[in-house]
Amino acid sequence: MNGSRITGQVRIVGAGLLGASIGLALRSKGVDTIVDDASPGALSLAIDYGAGRAPLGDDSPGLIVVAVPPDQTAAVVAKELLAFPNAIVTDVASVKGLPLSQLREAGADLSRYVGSHPLAGRERGGAISARADLFVGRPWVIATGNEETTEMIGVIEDLVLDLDALPMLMTAEEHDESVALVSHVPQVISTILAKQLSRGSERSLSLTGQGLRDTTRIAASDPQLWIQILSANSETVVDILRSFHGDLGELIAILEQPSVPGAKRAIAETLSAGNVGVARLPGKHGQDRRFSQIVVMVDDTPGELARLLVEIGDIGINLEDLRLEHSPGTLVGLAEISVLPEVEAQLVSELEALGWRVAEAWK
Amino acid sequence: MNGSRITGQVRIVGAGLLGASIGLALRSKGVDTIVDDASPGALSLAIDYGAGRAPLGDDSPGLIVVAVPPDQTAAVVAKELLAFPNAIVTDVASVKGLPLSQLREAGADLSRYVGSHPLAGRERGGAISARADLFVGRPWVIATGNEETTEMIGVIEDLVLDLDALPMLMTAEEHDESVALVSHVPQVISTILAKQLSRGSERSLSLTGQGLRDTTRIAASDPQLWIQILSANSETVVDILRSFHGDLGELIAILEQPSVPGAKRAIAETLSAGNVGVARLPGKHGQDRRFSQIVVMVDDTPGELARLLVEIGDIGINLEDLRLEHSPGTLVGLAEISVLPEVEAQLVSELEALGWRVAEAWK
Repeated sequence: MNGSRITGQVRIVGAGLLGASIGLALRSKGVDTIVDDASPGALSLAIDYGAGRAPLGDDSPGLIVVAVPPDQTAAVVAKELLAFPNAIVTDVASVKGLPLSQLREAGADLSRYVGSHPLAGRERGGAISARADLFVGRPWVIATGNEETTEMIGVIEDLVLDLDALPMLMTAEEHDESVALVSHVPQVISTILAKQLSRGSERSLSLTGQGLRDTTRIAASDPQLWIQILSANSETVVDILRSFHGDLGELIAILEQPSVPGAKRAIAETLSAGNVGVARLPGKHGQDRRFSQIVVMVDDTPGELARLLVEIGDIGINLEDLRLEHSPGTLVGLAEISVLPEVEAQLVSELEALGWRVAEAWK
Repeated sequence: MNGSRITGQVRIVGAGLLGASIGLALRSKGVDTIVDDASPGALSLAIDYGAGRAPLGDDSPGLIVVAVPPDQTAAVVAKELLAFPNAIVTDVASVKGLPLSQLREAGADLSRYVGSHPLAGRERGGAISARADLFVGRPWVIATGNEETTEMIGVIEDLVLDLDALPMLMTAEEHDESVALVSHVPQVISTILAKQLSRGSERSLSLTGQGLRDTTRIAASDPQLWIQILSANSETVVDILRSFHGDLGELIAILEQPSVPGAKRAIAETLSAGNVGVARLPGKHGQDRRFSQIVVMVDDTPGELARLLVEIGDIGINLEDLRLEHSPGTLVGLAEISVLPEVEAQLVSELEALGWRVAEAWK
């Protein structure tokens, strides 16, 4: 028991992955955690799993966390505000504007509601997949700009810090615009790119490299969840998709006549704009720092990658990132290692001295 | 010296990354390798680097490899066919239809030409970045269906096998359609997605997760090279981009009115088509097998990841894939480990027994 910032009872409504993970983490800090769910089966599973205790008639939570699907969030928040007139209520839905406007329409008491959203990635669903460490180090947006008080924000910040996440204050509008750009639009684009693969033969797809794998990885995400997210944030998502659609239409027109004067320059400008965009993404530890990549060939046998990393550790160099790539049909893996630029040359020469085969990274 | 399948002299024209890498590999097998380049500076650098010897007046190569930019390929191939009337000529340009039709128009002797293309990823350019192991385990397409003989194909296969790459026979048309789908279109889509990031504030981009990073990674590629590739394969690329553009336009229309009957079903169908597409990508070792992923938390200090992999090795389980993710602002890394589904449960329980914090993988 590490002690918590949160005091008093916390009631969690919705015993899925997020709700149960919050419960596990709070209980590990000694918080009196109540878990509730419309499904008795889901509730008893979450309780068995250790996510909290069952509700009692005289519960008096100071904080309620609503962790239900986006399309049910506003209704459940409104119900909890009525049932517990002394509690602050938050939710963890991945859109923030729609629940807020639905609550406003329903005449809910917004002076006790603060929306929030942990950017904790998507995991297999249900309490059975819950982990107390799900939120460690992840941004957790707290939606401000409504009737909330500084004290209420403080309570949600305490919750976020108890879960070892990183609180970040923004309005619901700023949140929804941000996640549209960094999460919802990439999901749509990856999905539609993956959809095009239906036209490829098995022979064509055997030429697949890491570029296609990376661009389509998130296209494997759960459709049920994404229908709700895209529907709930459709206006902002559509706005960015229209811009993408327009840019793509322009490039198609140029590629239809690649030999006319100015065509190559226009293609170059698009490619350069992509360079500029990707360079804006924050690096590790919130820095904008770029790393050097080297590629080391690793035999595909147990222990070989470990031996490489042990030897890098012995050299005293810290890995900033690591990625392993396999080519179809071969027994050799390629480990792409990111390090600080100033240690790249040393690492390459020491690894080569140890007998490793090193190549500069492929772009 | 391992001995080569190729016999006789090999002449390489173009002392950039690909040409110099081929030269390094052939020389390591004892082949008499000649390297030539229109630029005396580039040529002497490649020779100093060990990529081959300078041309002599009485050279009599049996095989010539043209490794110049795509827009110069046909002209250089035609010139080499004339200069060396007993040699077989191949090229390594990443498009195959355009050089072929240009050679046909120029009346070149196609009975001695076989185009090819190593899918060796993009590296920093120039002989200085060359590596003898650049092609190990990568597919290398040999373009068939013209005037080439079985014997000529055999010579190119010998070259490919000498470089430890995987020969794959397809027509120029099939090649260009395949790489349009698995390489050129993903490049365009990733570029245009990254271009949209110009609209995001630094605060918005601080919410970036692995999904956006993966979908935009290749948007950092070299514009100069990609102008040529996209121009040379524009017809096939445009064909797929139009399909993407149409699919995106349809989804935008649906998301403009997400509440009308049938809208959610239409969104679901698009998302499911993405699931189906990404499931078609070949897995490791050319199999279509899906792996189980687990995520282990790793302290961001030298040696911690190595210790994890050593302990996995001690358990006797082979990693199929590995990826390291860092959250901004935290000192904890998340190692995503892919293993055969049948060993997942054992690995999780043994790692937890050793004190590691394990979560199921995020999608």
